[in-house]
Formats: sequence, structure tokens, C-alpha cells
Amino acid sequence: MIDVVILGGGNVAIQFANAFYKTKKVQLVQLYSRSKPAVFFIDNHIPTTSNLKDLIEADLYIIAISDDAISNFSKNLILKDKLVVHTSGSVALQDLHCVANKGVFYPLQTISKHKNLNFKKIPICIEANNEKDYKLLDTVANSISKKVYSINSEQRKSLHVAAVFVNNFVNHLYKIGNDICTTNNVDFEILKPLIIETAKKIVSLSPSDAQTGPAKRNDKKTIANHLDLLTDKQQKIYILLTDSIIGLKI
Amino acid sequence: MIDVVILGGGNVAIQFANAFYKTKKVQLVQLYSRSKPAVFFIDNHIPTTSNLKDLIEADLYIIAISDDAISNFSKNLILKDKLVVHTSGSVALQDLHCVANKGVFYPLQTISKHKNLNFKKIPICIEANNEKDYKLLDTVANSISKKVYSINSEQRKSLHVAAVFVNNFVNHLYKIGNDICTTNNVDFEILKPLIIETAKKIVSLSPSDAQTGPAKRNDKKTIANHLDLLTDKQQKIYILLTDSIIGLKI
Repeated sequence: MIDVVILGGGNVAIQFANAFYKTKKVQLVQLYSRSKPAVFFIDNHIPTTSNLKDLIEADLYIIAISDDAISNFSKNLILKDKLVVHTSGSVALQDLHCVANKGVFYPLQTISKHKNLNFKKIPICIEANNEKDYKLLDTVANSISKKVYSINSEQRKSLHVAAVFVNNFVNHLYKIGNDICTTNNVDFEILKPLIIETAKKIVSLSPSDAQTGPAKRNDKKTIANHLDLLTDKQQKIYILLTDSIIGLKI
Repeated sequence: MIDVVILGGGNVAIQFANAFYKTKKVQLVQLYSRSKPAVFFIDNHIPTTSNLKDLIEADLYIIAISDDAISNFSKNLILKDKLVVHTSGSVALQDLHCVANKGVFYPLQTISKHKNLNFKKIPICIEANNEKDYKLLDTVANSISKKVYSINSEQRKSLHVAAVFVNNFVNHLYKIGNDICTTNNVDFEILKPLIIETAKKIVSLSPSDAQTGPAKRNDKKTIANHLDLLTDKQQKIYILLTDSIIGLKI
């Protein structure tokens, strides 16, 4: 049994706590949170503390707090010979300043409040400084997910920026689609099956092979018709992405 | 029973032919194609022709050919008192120049080769010039899909451009994500669950409410770090979409 302490009271902390609670190989022995967790936790019997001095012995300490706070927070942790990891996609392993062995335990997913996440299909990207620690993280990650990847800090940085494109920016394009529908009195519901299908296509097809549409065909007539229907702001995005698909210098 | 003739030998034509073949309310009585269809058709017993003079009597004629060709092709159809529809998102009803009643029967989906489509969840947008024709299209659409919408030509235009954002442009962002992964020796597979989750989120949440990420938080430090990792072209797209999310003038 691997004893784990989770440090944090936000969504990621609570989702991990709930996930570990259900596994057999990992025992959640303590939950540290500066204030009372905002999200419902599955079992009130797990010991909690708001004082770092009261941290108990464990094999693994998981810092699940906001990216900006990780570096400073870690300075207060004196856990010699223990393993401390953070859960951030954008923070390097070296930004952990604790007296401890260090690693990363990064779940690549948008983690929302109030939704009981099933981690099975969520990729967990792990990194450690030595093989023993790596093996421990691998065991912990495999106890909740079927998709565990070895990713170093450099790779993780690029994964994080790629995720901004396929998640944050994609969602913004959904918003523009929604805006166009609202302006023209069309139900955005009509587009939802297309949105799902577009995402699913990528599972079996490379994005290059899946590309269709007027830009791909360099269909100037349709492109001009489309631009007529858009606001200035929408036009700028339409033109930049169209030129990028066509392969023009942008 | 409603008798239907399909005109076209491409993906949309064959997918419709296969779908109607399985329904009870609609009978596919003939398939017109200029040349032999490139895609396998479910039943070789359906009469085919490559001569417009040999078109047989039917209640509905569905033109499923490329958008550019519809207008000219329709000029050759003399089908007085019959109903002729096209299946395009970007062509107006008035662009049908046949001697016939006119309408539109537009399936909002990316329709690929060799994949036997299930139309049940695919929205079909219908339009007609009179109530009788509308009812006929409504019956035909409902025989294969559970999502039938009344959409006029103006609405359909805006739906088509919105679809470019949520389908073609979204796919291009997947490609950029893939490129970033390839450059940095990261397996694009890791991003696929996030891609699927991002799309699914929209089913229950508005895109505005679903927006997360450094741009949403106006997290300048992370944004600067991300830009460092990108090519010039990727940077331009990153900056434009980030500014758009922040709400800056772009």
C-alpha cells in the first residue's frame, strides 16, 4: 500500500482524493488544505489539516494547487527522503523548492468542479529524478488511469501549449460559432453533432487527413461569401486560419 | 410510400441512397450518376441511369453533387409539378434553375467515403416554397434522422460559416497541436482524450461558460512562456485567438 497526502483544496485536489479513495494500491492518509475545501469530498473520515507542521508520514505528497503558487508553497515543505510532486502542466520539476525528492504527476484534462471524474481515460504524465521514484509514481498513476506517460519537463511544456490550441482555442471557435448562430437566429444545437464528430474523427484520422472545407479547397468564392456574413473581428480570425490552412505566409 | 430519385454518385448521394434503402416510408426508385459511382452502393438492384432523359417518375428528386455544379446541372431538369431539392449548405434555394418545385435537404455533417453513416443523429435542415413540399421533405427527413430543422436560405448561409469555425478551423487547431507534439517528440495520442472532452463539454455547457486557460485568466506569464515555444506562424494564431478571448480589439 502506498500512503499519499494531498495538499490543496481545489478541484484537482478533491478529484484526486476521490479517485485514490476508490483504489486498493493507494491509501489517502491525509488531506492538507489552507482553508476548508470548497468541493465536496467523498469521505469525511480522512484526516485533514490546515497546518503544514502537522503533515503525517507518507510515501508521496501531491501538491495540487494553482500553478503560480507551487514554487513558493514548496519552499515550506521539509520532507527529506520523501517524494513530493506537483500536478501542473506549466511548472518545471525544478520549480519545486522543497527539501525532498521531486517529481510531476500531471493529469492532462480540464478538471471542473462538482463532476466526479473518471480518471481511467485521462492521461497522466509522470516525471521523476530517479527510477525508484518513477516506479512509485507509475504505480500510483496506474491505480487510477489506464493512460500513463513518461513526460519530461520540456515535453510537458510543449504539451501544455498544444493543449491550449486543442482545448482553449477550440472552445473559443465554438463560441464564435455560437455567436454567429445567435446573430442569425439559428439554434446552436444544430452544430453540436458536427462538433462531436469533428473531435471523434481525430481518434482514427490524422488532422491533416481530416481537413476539409473551403480553405482546404482554396474555394475563393465560398470564402468571399462567408466573409460577407462576419463581423470585423470574426473576419480577422477567419482570414488568418484560412490562410494558414491554404499554406500562405501569415 | 414516397418515391425518391437521387442524382449524384459521390459520398452524399451514396450515403443517402443507403440510408433510404433501409427505411419503410421512402422508396429509392432510381439513382442517376454521370459516371459509375465511386463508392459501393448497398443494393445493385436499384435501377441506375447516366442519362437525364431516362429519369423516371418520382415524388422527390435529390441533387447530391458538388456545390459549384448544382446551379448549372439543375437547368437541365424539366420535372414540372415534381419536387427537386439540393443538399448543399452554401447554395441558396433560388440557385436551383429547374422547371419544378424547389427545396433544400441539407445534412449538417462531414460526410466521408466508405463509412456507413448513421443519419439518426445528423441534423437535416429542410426548406421548401410551400407547405405541401415542406411536409413531404419533413417526412423524408424524419424517416432517416431524429433531428430535423426548418432552416431558410439566409439561416443556412450563417450555419454554413459557423460550421467552418467549429469544424474546419477546429480541425486546423488540432493540426497545430499535432505539429507542436511532433516537433517536441511528444505522442499526439496524449491529447486525444482532452479533444473529445472539450467537444463533449459543449453539449451541456455554453462555450462562454466552458472557456478556461491562460487567455481567459489573462495570465501574461504563461502566455509569454507559450509564445517562446512556437513558430512565427503559430505565434500569430496564438496571439490573435488569445486577444480575442481576452476581449481586446483585434
